[in-house]
Amino acid sequence: MLTPRPLTQAEFAAFGDVIELKGTPDKLINQGMCGRHHDLAVLDFADGRAGISLFDAEARHLPCEVALVERHPLGSQAFVPISGTPFLVIVAEDDDGTPVNIQAFVTQPGQSVNLHRGVWHGVLCPLGKRGLYAVVDRIGPGNNLEEHWFDTPLNVGPMM
Amino acid sequence: MLTPRPLTQAEFAAFGDVIELKGTPDKLINQGMCGRHHDLAVLDFADGRAGISLFDAEARHLPCEVALVERHPLGSQAFVPISGTPFLVIVAEDDDGTPVNIQAFVTQPGQSVNLHRGVWHGVLCPLGKRGLYAVVDRIGPGNNLEEHWFDTPLNVGPMM
Repeated sequence: MLTPRPLTQAEFAAFGDVIELKGTPDKLINQGMCGRHHDLAVLDFADGRAGISLFDAEARHLPCEVALVERHPLGSQAFVPISGTPFLVIVAEDDDGTPVNIQAFVTQPGQSVNLHRGVWHGVLCPLGKRGLYAVVDRIGPGNNLEEHWFDTPLNVGPMM
Repeated sequence: MLTPRPLTQAEFAAFGDVIELKGTPDKLINQGMCGRHHDLAVLDFADGRAGISLFDAEARHLPCEVALVERHPLGSQAFVPISGTPFLVIVAEDDDGTPVNIQAFVTQPGQSVNLHRGVWHGVLCPLGKRGLYAVVDRIGPGNNLEEHWFDTPLNVGPMM
């Protein structure tokens, strides 16, 4: 049983970026009415270009079973929640092509996530209700998807 | 008095992209649980690279006065509402360096906006409450901001 914990940048740093407000903005713009928190994600594309798509995903509920993880060798992938729906973020380290040391997080209000290029991760799982997400990832030809199906599905339990 | 109207792709096409769900997704992913609506914005950068920042902006209220518009000659700029706050989108055509034919729109639920490179636009105006937005724009050195201050501030009225 994998127990998800609240997402934090410190624990997630090996896998990607938590896109969230810093303590203070890098710059005040618009006559002081707006804080710019600058350049919070490592967008990394082997080729092609960055694009913005929308993912419209059905609700999942904890506890749940996770049958596979996947990775995108050609580019990073960022998820920005538009509908306010928290989502389950499963990530794993890589051991010569096999995902190991699997970890589960749940996003907190105001957090978006950027998965670094090539990081094993679970599919998009909005928790509790349908979720709409803006996705910033690589647009281009070629196979940018590798899947790893588990022999036995992972059980992901309720939150810590 | 400029009267804002609900944002639609058809009316906004000359200025940028309305990033919203299509009638049907381009692709079903994640075992049919998620629809991908693919590549909905023209990201266009003269140099530098795409990045993701956060804008944390104070509330504005209609009617309001708009003192200036600005443009970014080196790159497009996309705004994805994380907090669910609708925002005022003021845009204008260009006549040899001067903004003309100014128009005002208000985003509808689920809509994000990508301003095409070089398009005159108003500053970020969350309506009714403070707003948090993911911004996808150009990261790089050099001056990417031109402002045009109106001799007399524009009066932007309540919605049509």
